[in-house]
Amino acid sequence: MSMSQRPRAALAMSRRISRRIMNDEHRTRLATICEVLDPEPLRDFEDERAAKVLRQTEILLTSWGCPRIDARVLDRAPALRAIIHAAGTVKGHVSADCWERGIQVTSAAAANAVPVAEFTLAAILFANKRAFALRERYRELRAFRDWHDEAGELGNYRRVVGVVGASMVGRRVLELLRVHDMSVALYDPFVSEAEATSLNAHKAELGDLLAQSDVVTLHAPSLPETRDLIGARELALLRDGATLINTARGALVDQAALESEVSAGRIYAVIDTTDPEVLPADSPLYTLPNVFLTPHIAGAMGRETWRLTDLALDEAERYANGEPLRYGIALSDLGRIA
Amino acid sequence: MSMSQRPRAALAMSRRISRRIMNDEHRTRLATICEVLDPEPLRDFEDERAAKVLRQTEILLTSWGCPRIDARVLDRAPALRAIIHAAGTVKGHVSADCWERGIQVTSAAAANAVPVAEFTLAAILFANKRAFALRERYRELRAFRDWHDEAGELGNYRRVVGVVGASMVGRRVLELLRVHDMSVALYDPFVSEAEATSLNAHKAELGDLLAQSDVVTLHAPSLPETRDLIGARELALLRDGATLINTARGALVDQAALESEVSAGRIYAVIDTTDPEVLPADSPLYTLPNVFLTPHIAGAMGRETWRLTDLALDEAERYANGEPLRYGIALSDLGRIA
Repeated sequence: MSMSQRPRAALAMSRRISRRIMNDEHRTRLATICEVLDPEPLRDFEDERAAKVLRQTEILLTSWGCPRIDARVLDRAPALRAIIHAAGTVKGHVSADCWERGIQVTSAAAANAVPVAEFTLAAILFANKRAFALRERYRELRAFRDWHDEAGELGNYRRVVGVVGASMVGRRVLELLRVHDMSVALYDPFVSEAEATSLNAHKAELGDLLAQSDVVTLHAPSLPETRDLIGARELALLRDGATLINTARGALVDQAALESEVSAGRIYAVIDTTDPEVLPADSPLYTLPNVFLTPHIAGAMGRETWRLTDLALDEAERYANGEPLRYGIALSDLGRIA
Repeated sequence: MSMSQRPRAALAMSRRISRRIMNDEHRTRLATICEVLDPEPLRDFEDERAAKVLRQTEILLTSWGCPRIDARVLDRAPALRAIIHAAGTVKGHVSADCWERGIQVTSAAAANAVPVAEFTLAAILFANKRAFALRERYRELRAFRDWHDEAGELGNYRRVVGVVGASMVGRRVLELLRVHDMSVALYDPFVSEAEATSLNAHKAELGDLLAQSDVVTLHAPSLPETRDLIGARELALLRDGATLINTARGALVDQAALESEVSAGRIYAVIDTTDPEVLPADSPLYTLPNVFLTPHIAGAMGRETWRLTDLALDEAERYANGEPLRYGIALSDLGRIA
């Protein structure tokens, strides 16, 4: 491919993020695929530098911190043909205008799904094992016990895992669970029984899933329809000693109901996402022995963000080679994805 | 198969264990495969009931709590042809005399390896994610932080996992790691480079493995030669921020050296096995934020012990059908297995 054929590209994200998600290999590879108009990412589409860069930009490589791309910005970017997002959701920065002008939109949500699914798998394996709770108990007792008796029924054999949402993360969790001796119930209104079977699961209504699962893990998108999907009534359906895992979004769970249910000690929880994002300092979730609370770290962190950039550069390469994008997003997808 | 052809079987284990590892399905299946001489397990080979049962026993199904089977016991069991152990190591109760009399010996170590490998996988995924440490830090701060900066380099992408010992557990860990984006260094003096490659790993000397790994996980047997395999010198070879996982045996690690190294905060540790088995109440391992200490729970617990019984009954069925046992142990294996 000759120099003149390379599409012109610009970056739009915070400077801090660009340093984090792009290593030297990524910069070298990007420069091979595209003509990079400015190695410094755009952080503001209104300034003079942006005006000059946007005028020539054919591919915009975006990530966290990219300002909103609305009709006004698009007016200044007449050559723009593809927005490649090296992060998860595009809802924050990509407006409907982008699709209306025929610009291709793609994201690295598939690459972001990998660490979330891995975190979830680890949480399932430790939850069924009562590893978190037995650690706390051992810390407290500092003595021998018959831990079988302390923990009640435990172990990762012939358990039922309930997966709520066949999103990219949900599907990856289903895939990872294949090699473990568990059966999986799947709740997703958009998935047929046949598709559930092909995903190694059986289709279930939400209530049935909650009642039959040892662990329930949430992978639904945060949408107006999914707000408080898991409320007091749903939590009450969980079996005694069941574990709720939330690595999706806090808004999916009625936070007061969750607090009340875990405070009663009837269920266990592994909670990576809450609403609000940082819990009040007096939240019982920080200290309850039946809750393992982490600060929204399941998604791509540290070197896991390199996987997002790898995927984004794969997409840029496909675009440059005239191939269809692999993770293209349609405007009509937005109502059912994260 | 007619009734008269079924081999006569007895159980030898503690009563508590027999109740735990055998559910109703197991009892029904055992009675289909064998003629069970006494549904109540033998717990003492010296009493009159044992004398009567042993005289006719062809298959002895053993588990935790089985007394030692020495020459004297064998003299009383002239029909004994197979000892099938529904647990891990046979070293505690099966004497060399058993092999010398041509008795087949088999164990459910392969089934016990599954939960240990699953626990290890969860520990690796959480360790690279700094999930344990960030949970403690979030608990302490109860505020937002850029957790990337708090945790240093993190994530499960392109990490190096060092596996010490290609035991059944070690091999299962290697198998489980295949779908994750990590490379694996394997130290095992009995494994060739070609075999390491076929196991999805590269062969390394112990020192090199310790120096190049982000996580080191121990799966070597506890033998005189492996006592203190990981001492102060070896711990010093670990990279800053590396994690040591021990789900094998405390004796593999110099406990004072480990305590000193984790107290300095230079490395992280997930420790399921210690020496002594229950640590003194003043051990820093109970409370250090960089240590996740559990009370020897990685092996088969709760319903995971059913998997041991499933495997043992598979072996009993093979024996009854005149087929070779799948997990037979030779006397010469004892020097290199757990």
